[in-house]
Amino acid sequence: MSNPVDFYFDYSSPYGYIAAMKIDELMAKYNRAVNWRPILLGAVFKVTGGQPLPSLPLKGDYAKRDIARSARFHGVAIRLPSKFPIASQAPSRAFYWVNDRDPALARKLAKALYRAYFVDDRDISGPDVTADVAATLGLQRDEVLAALNNPAVKDRLKNEVDAAIKLGVFGSPYIVIDGEPFWGVDRFDHIERWLAQGPF
Amino acid sequence: MSNPVDFYFDYSSPYGYIAAMKIDELMAKYNRAVNWRPILLGAVFKVTGGQPLPSLPLKGDYAKRDIARSARFHGVAIRLPSKFPIASQAPSRAFYWVNDRDPALARKLAKALYRAYFVDDRDISGPDVTADVAATLGLQRDEVLAALNNPAVKDRLKNEVDAAIKLGVFGSPYIVIDGEPFWGVDRFDHIERWLAQGPF
Repeated sequence: MSNPVDFYFDYSSPYGYIAAMKIDELMAKYNRAVNWRPILLGAVFKVTGGQPLPSLPLKGDYAKRDIARSARFHGVAIRLPSKFPIASQAPSRAFYWVNDRDPALARKLAKALYRAYFVDDRDISGPDVTADVAATLGLQRDEVLAALNNPAVKDRLKNEVDAAIKLGVFGSPYIVIDGEPFWGVDRFDHIERWLAQGPF
Repeated sequence: MSNPVDFYFDYSSPYGYIAAMKIDELMAKYNRAVNWRPILLGAVFKVTGGQPLPSLPLKGDYAKRDIARSARFHGVAIRLPSKFPIASQAPSRAFYWVNDRDPALARKLAKALYRAYFVDDRDISGPDVTADVAATLGLQRDEVLAALNNPAVKDRLKNEVDAAIKLGVFGSPYIVIDGEPFWGVDRFDHIERWLAQGPF
């Protein structure tokens, strides 16, 4: 098997959500493992001067339309959340905490959290909601809540975000394959050609 | 034949250039005429707060790489110009001036100007260079130069830009098909499905 692919995403990112629903299937086709890496776009935007798309004039209306159309294009269900964007510390910390013990479970948790936000319109920025979602996968609610306040878990996320910024990650989804970066679920066509035919 | 498609672009936009090299072929396949509509992103960005991608931290390095890769993906030759971005009044005015008399020639001029900038690295912001390119298509150099300073031609461009902003155009390329907007050459996949299968 070739090198694993790095998949950076923010839990508040609609295009990250669409990518998350599709990436394992795409990569499995080319025999690639995926490292899921939640990050905090808020920290990234402090460096890049970026802003959430839907907050910009003109672009905001288009973004809402394009997000829904992109989801349909990829065959992924989506409902734009009533609260957007949200802080993504809680779901991201929960992910890394589980990932250090059980990567397969962490993957399931990542998808369940994304669906809670982008399909069921639940505000996963709240530790309680994140813990509730984790509990549906058999995790202990109080252990999850304790982990979210654990300084070691907080540091773990902070280090991941710092490392991502150092690598040049500036958006979500952001996918790195053998050193080549691809930003956006709209680069899945580039990715697929890259994997099928090699670098171009 | 169905309604014509509106194709908005800025002469300084690399993704606009790639789209310009592909759009007639794509639309011909679906029996659609194309209205080419050069605009000035500088005026648009005053409304939207946007900035040229390559000027942003982190995003700039990625943009250069993605522009080259996108051109290869679409089979279009490109060389990133040494001066970027440029003011695009001269080529845009030349286009509208020709378009009012000979739309087919204006289309040829549009492509020749884009290639002069993105393949031959010529600074088409200069009226002289724009007139030189127009002359290769049989237009009279001095007539072109006079048109670029003609208040009626300047107003024509200004009105086109104002109308585009009013419609919500905020980037390049920006394509409107029966009221549905598509931003970016990376939406050609959405466009193709839309034309082939109808709205989705």
